[in-house]
Amino acid sequence: MSLHLAPGPEGIRSQLFHIIFESDTPGAKAFDLVLIVAILTSVAVILLGSVETYAQRYGDIFLYMEWTLTTAFSIELLVRLYCLERPTVYLKSFYGVVDLIAILPTWLVLLVPGAHALVIVRLLRVLRIFRILRMMEFVGEGQMLLEALKRSSRQILLFFSSILMVVTLFAALMYTIESDEAGFTSIPISIYWAIVSMTTVGYGDIVPVTPLGKSITVILMLLGYSIIAVPTGVFSAQVIRSIREERYSEEACPGCGLDRHEKGARYCLRCGTWLDEFSDDPREKTKEARQDVDTGE
Amino acid sequence: MSLHLAPGPEGIRSQLFHIIFESDTPGAKAFDLVLIVAILTSVAVILLGSVETYAQRYGDIFLYMEWTLTTAFSIELLVRLYCLERPTVYLKSFYGVVDLIAILPTWLVLLVPGAHALVIVRLLRVLRIFRILRMMEFVGEGQMLLEALKRSSRQILLFFSSILMVVTLFAALMYTIESDEAGFTSIPISIYWAIVSMTTVGYGDIVPVTPLGKSITVILMLLGYSIIAVPTGVFSAQVIRSIREERYSEEACPGCGLDRHEKGARYCLRCGTWLDEFSDDPREKTKEARQDVDTGE
Amino acid sequence: MSLHLAPGPEGIRSQLFHIIFESDTPGAKAFDLVLIVAILTSVAVILLGSVETYAQRYGDIFLYMEWTLTTAFSIELLVRLYCLERPTVYLKSFYGVVDLIAILPTWLVLLVPGAHALVIVRLLRVLRIFRILRMMEFVGEGQMLLEALKRSSRQILLFFSSILMVVTLFAALMYTIESDEAGFTSIPISIYWAIVSMTTVGYGDIVPVTPLGKSITVILMLLGYSIIAVPTGVFSAQVIRSIREERYSEEACPGCGLDRHEKGARYCLRCGTWLDEFSDDPREKTKEARQDVDTGE
Amino acid sequence: MSLHLAPGPEGIRSQLFHIIFESDTPGAKAFDLVLIVAILTSVAVILLGSVETYAQRYGDIFLYMEWTLTTAFSIELLVRLYCLERPTVYLKSFYGVVDLIAILPTWLVLLVPGAHALVIVRLLRVLRIFRILRMMEFVGEGQMLLEALKRSSRQILLFFSSILMVVTLFAALMYTIESDEAGFTSIPISIYWAIVSMTTVGYGDIVPVTPLGKSITVILMLLGYSIIAVPTGVFSAQVIRSIREERYSEEACPGCGLDRHEKGARYCLRCGTWLDEFSDDPREKTKEARQDVDTGE
Repeated sequence: MSLHLAPGPEGIRSQLFHIIFESDTPGAKAFDLVLIVAILTSVAVILLGSVETYAQRYGDIFLYMEWTLTTAFSIELLVRLYCLERPTVYLKSFYGVVDLIAILPTWLVLLVPGAHALVIVRLLRVLRIFRILRMMEFVGEGQMLLEALKRSSRQILLFFSSILMVVTLFAALMYTIESDEAGFTSIPISIYWAIVSMTTVGYGDIVPVTPLGKSITVILMLLGYSIIAVPTGVFSAQVIRSIREERYSEEACPGCGLDRHEKGARYCLRCGTWLDEFSDDPREKTKEARQDVDTGE
Repeated sequence: MSLHLAPGPEGIRSQLFHIIFESDTPGAKAFDLVLIVAILTSVAVILLGSVETYAQRYGDIFLYMEWTLTTAFSIELLVRLYCLERPTVYLKSFYGVVDLIAILPTWLVLLVPGAHALVIVRLLRVLRIFRILRMMEFVGEGQMLLEALKRSSRQILLFFSSILMVVTLFAALMYTIESDEAGFTSIPISIYWAIVSMTTVGYGDIVPVTPLGKSITVILMLLGYSIIAVPTGVFSAQVIRSIREERYSEEACPGCGLDRHEKGARYCLRCGTWLDEFSDDPREKTKEARQDVDTGE
Repeated sequence: MSLHLAPGPEGIRSQLFHIIFESDTPGAKAFDLVLIVAILTSVAVILLGSVETYAQRYGDIFLYMEWTLTTAFSIELLVRLYCLERPTVYLKSFYGVVDLIAILPTWLVLLVPGAHALVIVRLLRVLRIFRILRMMEFVGEGQMLLEALKRSSRQILLFFSSILMVVTLFAALMYTIESDEAGFTSIPISIYWAIVSMTTVGYGDIVPVTPLGKSITVILMLLGYSIIAVPTGVFSAQVIRSIREERYSEEACPGCGLDRHEKGARYCLRCGTWLDEFSDDPREKTKEARQDVDTGE
Repeated sequence: MSLHLAPGPEGIRSQLFHIIFESDTPGAKAFDLVLIVAILTSVAVILLGSVETYAQRYGDIFLYMEWTLTTAFSIELLVRLYCLERPTVYLKSFYGVVDLIAILPTWLVLLVPGAHALVIVRLLRVLRIFRILRMMEFVGEGQMLLEALKRSSRQILLFFSSILMVVTLFAALMYTIESDEAGFTSIPISIYWAIVSMTTVGYGDIVPVTPLGKSITVILMLLGYSIIAVPTGVFSAQVIRSIREERYSEEACPGCGLDRHEKGARYCLRCGTWLDEFSDDPREKTKEARQDVDTGE
């Protein structure tokens, strides 16, 4: 938009800002693409570097790529901060923290030798992908899902509280019924087993042995199998509601300010005001007609 | 509300009642918080006390905490009963029984030495959390879910009856096909296996071995995988219905007969007729006022 | 209803018919209860009789109960046939066949010694419970579910055809990638594994070993995990539709015969005929009024 | 339709075209049936041929059937191409490629001996079944599902991106917590385990051992168990929308503005206005007729 307006540093800053923070020009799109490739490469290097055989064979290459990418990310962060008017505000935001986390662990290795174990922290750079997703117009979809989640959050919280209570009671029951040999050595372990069973994961590392234990397991499994209908039903209903609300216009009633009318509604459902700006209220016409008749006599 | 009305015992009882049974004052909220921490601590003590290594190391601390908390719960129950006008009615209610169950097993240990095994009964104090949930305005959400469950209960019962019949027949089939070595030693065990497979838990402790057995298992698994759609669909539909009914009133518009108005709608959204029977249409007033002005001139 | 009308055999037949085939009188309800207890007992005897230890200890009791119940069921069937005007038609119906299957295997043991192995056939008597369910007014719920299933049947068939094709291709892929030691000894076995994985059962009896095999498994599992949304979504939509149709009145339009109007609809949506029998069409009034005005001038 | 129009080669080509590419005449239906049996037989031969014991016993029969069917498919493809005016266009289409893939691998064995291993490519002939499905009027259902999938694709893509990020972070966490003995030897293996757990497959080949690892697994399983509600909810909502849109026209009533009429509705169900713009209201005619009678007298 404001390309080549000024040759000075201000113009460069503004150009860099458009390339780095937006995604509507070819340059900005190319930058996004390079960034996403760099992030994925960097994540792949960390993943493959954790495999023994690859680490031994390609260890040097991995180390070289890790440092190259970290340096690139560091420069990118500095440029990012340079573009902004309030860099400290950005550094304290979610994306700023993620950007810092993406590069700090590698630099720390220079200072602290044991810091190489910070593999999880380094992997947090995968969160940077969210930034790209945000730019690729996934915002609407994500926001709709988040809104539906927020609306059903109380019910899902209630659902999980109930599940945890049920699981605790079943676990205590199985702990008293089943012996230690079967693997039910404590109530926390039994809770782990109960959740493995109820969520239908079913590793099979701990399994009921006694007939009574198997009977109770059957009840727990049927419960877990069918109870999944609860969050699914609640969430489905909320998604449907969100989609339906797209059907409501967002214009406010000029009479009372109510802003939730069905698209195509002609009268405000709270104060009865005529909503359509582009045509006249038929009631007015009727009234006028009646008045004409009245005055005509 | 009625704080500091009377300095006598009646005033204290009423104050205690507000703190213990309600949750709208700062005191009552603090009490709720203390109670929920005490319940969770007490549950954690029971859970960790069942772990061999912790029990040996921290056994004394656990015993001390158990007795402290049980004493506190006992005092709380006594105060609760002291506040109420009809304590026996409360003791027979769901929450009264849960309160008793939460403390009785520990006291029983003093009388009966073997009573320490009543670990499940002691864990029932986890149900006390429901009381807190009730206070935290989760009632609406829970009630909506329960209503949807109640509405779909007949269909879900029918669904489970059918599943149990299918499972019994598949189990009998597998019992005749698979040998004892594979683990199918009796029909009840086969039923356990069939439910493990159908609910997609799949422990893997019993597994088909013969090609015919595997073919039948494939059918059972596909059945279980897709049949979950039935309770989910039924429940989703009922939740959607519950949400919709909350939003729509059931009264029809006297003007045009439209019977789908949002609750709180005052004018029919199709023909603009005034919907509220118990008050007058402000438009009428305006018109009358205008007419008064007209005739006044 | 027609109790004690005639003391002759006709009266007895009619009384027996009401008791056995209906469920609205106390006698009929008591009969249903006895029948369901007998069926469940008989099923329990078969199930427990298949457990080695119980068979050895209580074998005689099981045999005695089996014969008693079979005799009772046989007498019941004879009485049933005696009540009916066309017994052969009943015997060829679904319930008639189930009734026969419920007793024949036990009688066959007298003639053929090896027939004792017909355990599955004997268990088919569990299907008799459907009769009871039918009487307990579960018909509506079942019919609604069946209707929703029937409506979504084509889509679900298409879904399963696609799944089987996907599973076959994944199985062939894994058969070529994974070695025999991992358990992928043939394509049919691989198909069994693919269905175990895709339906999220996951026994763990066959498991990918190579990195490539694990990568493909990951895709298969994510596919199976998310694709369940398809039948669930289709079925949910159909249940919602079925429930909504309850909202439609079943009265036909007197003008054109159309029988699908929203409850509360006042005009036929096909021919515009006034639907409400109990009040007059306001259009008529307006017309009359207009005519009055016309003729008045 | 155009049977026996011309005795020349054109007539034969047109006849063959109707039989092979359509499915509305008895001949065409018979051809479809023969084709589907041939495809299924051919797939069965490949599947059973991969089983060691069957291959040894019936190897010759399988080889004979494979060659017979491949020859038949080859002739069919040639005839197909002969019927068409632009055979090369067909060969480049999806079905043309599938047809070629279905026969090429077997012919390749003649030239390249090792080509017998192309078992997966040969199995791709299972895709030919889609052609039959297309003809059996499954198109509408499939299209509806595809449309719903397309509509929810962005949300499902977003869902999977988020899942993969979550899974990567959990995997890295478990890799640092759990030891190599438990099977968490690298992050990619941990990712495999995390997906096995989150999709509730739960093979049990890799299982957490430490208490901390089990606690994190519990969170991952509960997440996977409940998060399935997201794609299910989104897809359900889209299916419902697709079904609804089939039933409602989008034109509003000129009389009262109601915009939710069933397709084929001729009068507004709320105000009785004639909806069809392209023809006249029969009531008008009746009225006119009546007026003609009135004025005629």
